[in-house]
Amino acid sequence: MRSHYCGQLNETLVDQTVTLCGWVHRRRDHGGVIFLDMRDRDGIAQVVVDPDTAEAFANADRCRNEFVLRIVGRVRPRPEGTQNPNMPTGMIEVLAKEVEVLNTAATPPFQLDEHGKVGEEVRLKHRYIDLRRPEMLDKLRLRSRISHSVRAFLEGQGFLDIETPILTRATPEGARDYLVPSRTHAGSFFALPQSPQLFKQLLMVSGFDRYYQIAKCFRDEDLRADRQPEFTQIDLEASFVDEDEIMGITESMIRQLFQEVLEVELPEFPRMPYSEAMSRYGSDKPDLRIPLELVDVDDLMAQVDFKVFSGPAKADDGRVAALKVPGGAELSRKAIDEYTKFVGIYGAKGLAWIKVNERAKGLEGLQSPIVKFMENVIDELLERVDAQDGDIIFFGADKARVVNEALGALRVKLGEDLELYTQDWAPLWVVDFPMFEDDGSARMQALHHPFTAPSCDVEALKADPAQALSRAYDMVLNGTELGGGSIRIHDQEMQRAVLEVLGIDQAEAEEKFGFLLDALKYGAPPHGGLAFGLDRLVMLMTGARTIREVIAFPKTQSAACLMTDAPGEVSAEQLKELNIRLRAKAKPEAAE
Amino acid sequence: MRSHYCGQLNETLVDQTVTLCGWVHRRRDHGGVIFLDMRDRDGIAQVVVDPDTAEAFANADRCRNEFVLRIVGRVRPRPEGTQNPNMPTGMIEVLAKEVEVLNTAATPPFQLDEHGKVGEEVRLKHRYIDLRRPEMLDKLRLRSRISHSVRAFLEGQGFLDIETPILTRATPEGARDYLVPSRTHAGSFFALPQSPQLFKQLLMVSGFDRYYQIAKCFRDEDLRADRQPEFTQIDLEASFVDEDEIMGITESMIRQLFQEVLEVELPEFPRMPYSEAMSRYGSDKPDLRIPLELVDVDDLMAQVDFKVFSGPAKADDGRVAALKVPGGAELSRKAIDEYTKFVGIYGAKGLAWIKVNERAKGLEGLQSPIVKFMENVIDELLERVDAQDGDIIFFGADKARVVNEALGALRVKLGEDLELYTQDWAPLWVVDFPMFEDDGSARMQALHHPFTAPSCDVEALKADPAQALSRAYDMVLNGTELGGGSIRIHDQEMQRAVLEVLGIDQAEAEEKFGFLLDALKYGAPPHGGLAFGLDRLVMLMTGARTIREVIAFPKTQSAACLMTDAPGEVSAEQLKELNIRLRAKAKPEAAE
Repeated sequence: MRSHYCGQLNETLVDQTVTLCGWVHRRRDHGGVIFLDMRDRDGIAQVVVDPDTAEAFANADRCRNEFVLRIVGRVRPRPEGTQNPNMPTGMIEVLAKEVEVLNTAATPPFQLDEHGKVGEEVRLKHRYIDLRRPEMLDKLRLRSRISHSVRAFLEGQGFLDIETPILTRATPEGARDYLVPSRTHAGSFFALPQSPQLFKQLLMVSGFDRYYQIAKCFRDEDLRADRQPEFTQIDLEASFVDEDEIMGITESMIRQLFQEVLEVELPEFPRMPYSEAMSRYGSDKPDLRIPLELVDVDDLMAQVDFKVFSGPAKADDGRVAALKVPGGAELSRKAIDEYTKFVGIYGAKGLAWIKVNERAKGLEGLQSPIVKFMENVIDELLERVDAQDGDIIFFGADKARVVNEALGALRVKLGEDLELYTQDWAPLWVVDFPMFEDDGSARMQALHHPFTAPSCDVEALKADPAQALSRAYDMVLNGTELGGGSIRIHDQEMQRAVLEVLGIDQAEAEEKFGFLLDALKYGAPPHGGLAFGLDRLVMLMTGARTIREVIAFPKTQSAACLMTDAPGEVSAEQLKELNIRLRAKAKPEAAE
Repeated sequence: MRSHYCGQLNETLVDQTVTLCGWVHRRRDHGGVIFLDMRDRDGIAQVVVDPDTAEAFANADRCRNEFVLRIVGRVRPRPEGTQNPNMPTGMIEVLAKEVEVLNTAATPPFQLDEHGKVGEEVRLKHRYIDLRRPEMLDKLRLRSRISHSVRAFLEGQGFLDIETPILTRATPEGARDYLVPSRTHAGSFFALPQSPQLFKQLLMVSGFDRYYQIAKCFRDEDLRADRQPEFTQIDLEASFVDEDEIMGITESMIRQLFQEVLEVELPEFPRMPYSEAMSRYGSDKPDLRIPLELVDVDDLMAQVDFKVFSGPAKADDGRVAALKVPGGAELSRKAIDEYTKFVGIYGAKGLAWIKVNERAKGLEGLQSPIVKFMENVIDELLERVDAQDGDIIFFGADKARVVNEALGALRVKLGEDLELYTQDWAPLWVVDFPMFEDDGSARMQALHHPFTAPSCDVEALKADPAQALSRAYDMVLNGTELGGGSIRIHDQEMQRAVLEVLGIDQAEAEEKFGFLLDALKYGAPPHGGLAFGLDRLVMLMTGARTIREVIAFPKTQSAACLMTDAPGEVSAEQLKELNIRLRAKAKPEAAE
């Protein structure tokens, strides 16, 4: 029905007859002539309809925005002075011979170029209109290209695309499962997978050697900004590999992806131990675009007569850290108050600071509510953070976890607010994670999942589990965790030892993932893998502000789809077939 | 960790040192030497371990089947007389220098080459072992190649890969939905999609122009042989197209797929109207490899004095048809009795037949329990079916539906039993389906779904809906429906008319798919598409006997996974969070 997409038209087509199909993006009447901006997924082209072509003109005349048209016409250069060099098709226009109205359109609930005037709710309800915006089409088209590039790379590396089940059993990630009542097995439920983790390990036991899947995963969690109930992973696993091989393959994949899709050459991927990331950046996913670092000052602050600092400095689980911001002495009192409020979100009880006005003047050159308490260490402190005139130094003093979270987040916020970025893209690998974390409960918790291999042997693991490091690795880009993975345990004795540390007894293990433990008995190869969050990757690559911009039909933060009105009510008969009923409180009138 | 896959070894590598990783497929001890057949996903290679290499020999000596090994050795030609030309690696062997045991293996529940000795249940429970069988690996590898080929073709044609939701609202296919209780919206449920039908139409309304997805779909039906609760569709949709364009694109896709993956050149795809398919083959998915046809004999049988035939021949909804089988006169009485029982499954009350022993002898040359009733038409009958000596003619006489189903199935069974196939692959398009079927209930039913466009205009549709044909098309290969689709309705007036015929009133339409009807108002382009069943396509291409052979982790006919033991019980606490409880009958002890 068409010869060209609108966006494809250019000067090489002058004098040719073309057929376009698309939507009326804008209509203008000017000097007795109708101008139609015709839009399709490739772009916008200007169509001129002259009263000389009477039938075409009559049809064009009844058109309003978003009418669907088929246009036959001749490409011609735009008259001198009316060209638009900012538009790919801006040098030409199409003089219409035929205008066929394929469909009419009611006035849409919002005009595309005025989408900002309506709330996101209106746009989500009429998602099919919102998706017409060129920037939305472009984001989803880029998503399609990203999937394509990833698939091509992995298939070139011998990875096989294998589908794993959606209707399955609870998986060991530990978030809340979505459940599906079984009709044929009364009282039983499927769980939707939080990841294909166990299945991909079983595929390695089967000898598939290299597996990948762009897989839907599900978590029934209260949604934070960047979460969706269903999300997509680039999931892969390989056998007879070590961490260097998995990291090498996936780093190449991301590097090639950025070249192909964005024409960006990513810099080196440094490897940073978890402990260093926490110490220098207060985060296990540091944004290395920002040239600010946390500096440990425990030893100095242990000497001051100021309990707020000396207490954490001396405590085993405490930390006092400084964050120097070059040029930050210009921050207003109000700005500092805002930052104080900001770190409060992370549990910090305050935000101490020193402005370095003129370091040469000694104490007099400093401005600070707290400097009076630390005269005895001030020189050494300024030396350690390499303070220059015009800097501000912030402090965090609390439990290490609070200091890391608060100053880590403050560092990122300052980087953004003060535009401190030194580069566009800053990738890295974070490695050498602890195997376990002690969250204060009776049991140790697995930092990743119970199948992550430790980097020590069984004896060392049992002797001091808190010191054991894992063979896990996270890929981080611009402060976002793009993906994470590990070498898995393939040895039964090691698996038993890890479950023991986690306080998972045999019965519980058998109940939760007995089939995997069984499989390990029958000749499991050494194996490992990684999973990337595709939605986040697309967000980063498209510069989207919310995850909802890179998903065609997303859900709201209360896990609802405003367009289809899902979830919805179901009939009493359906519930009966599924052997369930609603709790009285939930919806008394619907329960039979 | 490896230099080559086992299956890659050949004579060009003689004298090279290689490193293999894999499983002990078989171990033999012969003349003081240990022979290990090492298996990985690419094949099997013979490894020889000599007692001279003491450490390697000691390690090899403790190996049993399915141990996981890493082997370093030198490739050498097999000694004269021990070559195996039937094996890709059969001309060489590897003389081991090092044998490293990477993992041990307990005796598996069945030996791979004796999998036939255990029931499918045992194999499904230990699926990770069953998948080690080279034929299973090969089928899933071929599936991966098929997905790859399809994606490459469609992306080359400008189709964008767009993901649609899994947690959604009931879709209009009409099978039973899988439901997911919502935690955040008490008393409400998501449905898992039976297809992405509505979403892909909305993507067309948005202007994506060409969409595809390899999509998981779900139906909670009682499972017949070739069904699974979750299955995979190659789903596509395009705008500004007619049926020829969709059929052309998808035919090219399948043609290229067969070339790339099987090196098969498919023959022409003839187009056959639904009415012709039913009349000549008794099926809307005829297997054209079989050179048998149903022949209408209503006019003749209306003249016989045999009510079993003359009744249906005269009735409006009746049919009498003949099916001639060349050479079938050799069929034994017992075989005919079996076929009589077979057509009984489809509701036929009997299976009349005439054996043509010597046609030239007239009635005496025929053998048949019924020929005495049809002496007056026998000559014309034999002429019409072109009976030759040695043929058998079967008859069906009943309601047309019964005759079609019974003789259609008999035709396929005879083709298989008597090996009548004239070609390996016989594709076709079935077109010109009726819009509606009258299943005897008060309402007409949509043969496809309510968004399928009719090939007539609104007036004609309203005037005689029973005669209206749709713009639907099914691709059939070897008697299997590979996929089906249609041009959709993009016009509101037509959509209203169709819903009216279906007896769906405005409130019901609004409730079920109001968002799609809304979308049609705002400038919907002409569009259409198609969905292929990927599982069936893979079955056909791999020659698998059940759908379970082409799915990595399939479910049983009662919709359970024997390996993970899904579906399983969940805690009272989980149910409470989801605002549901079990019905007392279902599982009294688990309900809180």
